[in-house]
Amino acid sequence: MLLDATLADFEAALARIAPFVHQTPVHTSRSLNARAGAEVYLKCELFQRAGAFKMRGAANAIARLSDAERARGVVAHSSGNHAQAVALAAQDFGIAAHIVMPENVPRVKREATEGYGAKVTLCAPTMQAREAACAEIASATGAALIPPYDHDDVAMGQGTCALEFLRQVPGLDTLLVPVSGGGLISGVALAAHAVNPDISILGCEPALADDAARSMAAGQVVVHPAGPTIADGLRAQVCDRTFAVLQRHVAAVLTVSEDEIREAMVYLWERTKLMAEPSAATALAPLLFQRDRVPGQRIGVILSGGNVEARLA
Amino acid sequence: MLLDATLADFEAALARIAPFVHQTPVHTSRSLNARAGAEVYLKCELFQRAGAFKMRGAANAIARLSDAERARGVVAHSSGNHAQAVALAAQDFGIAAHIVMPENVPRVKREATEGYGAKVTLCAPTMQAREAACAEIASATGAALIPPYDHDDVAMGQGTCALEFLRQVPGLDTLLVPVSGGGLISGVALAAHAVNPDISILGCEPALADDAARSMAAGQVVVHPAGPTIADGLRAQVCDRTFAVLQRHVAAVLTVSEDEIREAMVYLWERTKLMAEPSAATALAPLLFQRDRVPGQRIGVILSGGNVEARLA
Repeated sequence: MLLDATLADFEAALARIAPFVHQTPVHTSRSLNARAGAEVYLKCELFQRAGAFKMRGAANAIARLSDAERARGVVAHSSGNHAQAVALAAQDFGIAAHIVMPENVPRVKREATEGYGAKVTLCAPTMQAREAACAEIASATGAALIPPYDHDDVAMGQGTCALEFLRQVPGLDTLLVPVSGGGLISGVALAAHAVNPDISILGCEPALADDAARSMAAGQVVVHPAGPTIADGLRAQVCDRTFAVLQRHVAAVLTVSEDEIREAMVYLWERTKLMAEPSAATALAPLLFQRDRVPGQRIGVILSGGNVEARLA
Repeated sequence: MLLDATLADFEAALARIAPFVHQTPVHTSRSLNARAGAEVYLKCELFQRAGAFKMRGAANAIARLSDAERARGVVAHSSGNHAQAVALAAQDFGIAAHIVMPENVPRVKREATEGYGAKVTLCAPTMQAREAACAEIASATGAALIPPYDHDDVAMGQGTCALEFLRQVPGLDTLLVPVSGGGLISGVALAAHAVNPDISILGCEPALADDAARSMAAGQVVVHPAGPTIADGLRAQVCDRTFAVLQRHVAAVLTVSEDEIREAMVYLWERTKLMAEPSAATALAPLLFQRDRVPGQRIGVILSGGNVEARLA
């Protein structure tokens, strides 16, 4: 069970996925430190393979399949980073990947996923259609479903990011982590607290996609469909599995405005030269705009990925 | 004399500036390797302090002043990375920096320079006006002029980037380097050849600012004013000092189109998540679009800086 994961479990997961993932660098910026009045450490998962932390969970989940299961391939639905991560991890293992994408997916994401050797199936842009298409493929091929977050091995894989981060930068007081379906933050919180129970874990989400904050306030999972936030990677809803971890291990979920996300992203681009995506900027935003809500002096920020299209100003 | 610089000279320069500069990381990308059919190593000077390699030359030149000279401060004219580098290096040394900027300089660049504690003087947007304003300040204050490239200590400082790069990645066959006034490429070529005389050094410049390619073809400095290239950092003209190094140490100067620069920059943004400026993309472009003109299998590209304003696509 996810909640029972130990330090040894995360160490094993990190060793298991090591051949397939980068140890991502940690960047610092004197101007950011001055602005925040703190020592800030940026964990650069945007430099992860396939461009996001999602590679960790995909690799861990595929590695944990039995040989027989794995031989039948994997299936996933995603319009974003998870699709590319599953496709690339499957390619690494030499197995088939079937990726279901909504028919309105941007061409560049579809091509990137196909570029990693996956077979892409388009469906209507609803969650029901995506799940139905996955079920059909799984039934026809025997492929194993790799969910984006509601899965112990996926969440554990994402958590390796925190174990690695705390080895690179010992003594962090606080971690700022974006929240979507909760796979990243649940893995991160468990791994971080396995290393040091005193670290404060703060979730960060758009005010337009604040289901995790609402759920924390209510003490139970509150379904609250996301609005049109720029941080489109954070629109998923927390689930029972991940919320159980949030309740025990996350100090608070902070919400930030669209303007704060945009400004934090431009700050990352201009000041740190990191091509961070809006979801990553969401985790930095509280430090820039809500400093009194962020305790501690040594603060880690997980820059989740770099899935963003930019053009010259 | 610049041409006589030895490995020991570059090692001394690197040790001299070490307290003031970052050892910048080297990034790789499997998709870039596949695209180029080579092992490609990206030297990330965009992560240098003040956002560009210019910090190396500024720090070296200021460090080489006598105590008495240094106490009177420094003066420079620049509308770009050199201004911020001189301002920041002067701040590090605790001395005054006077920066002359054209009155049409973007507000963000002026503010960044002032943010490093420099006194900014605006002048008419001509080279004559900039030089006259510098001379006036030097005369009034005794400040030492730090030129952007036509100066041995500046070029030697920039060259430390190559020494560091070749220590990080031994056995490079080829280096791709952007060319503007020639400070970077002359320092890089001398330092690289001091380590290994067989490395092929290729200059890269916009076809719209091809004075170095014209000069190489003519065997002498050809003044050819730059057109409106997106790589505005590469509009300066090579000078006698730097051209003498190009003639002996640079295998060729390749020119690239504006479209090639733009596409290479977007490639860097999307595939490597590096917020590279157009001048940096100019050095990658031959590898993407003129592969037959780039010899070797282990190829280093110097990503000069990250001075670019982007917005969401």
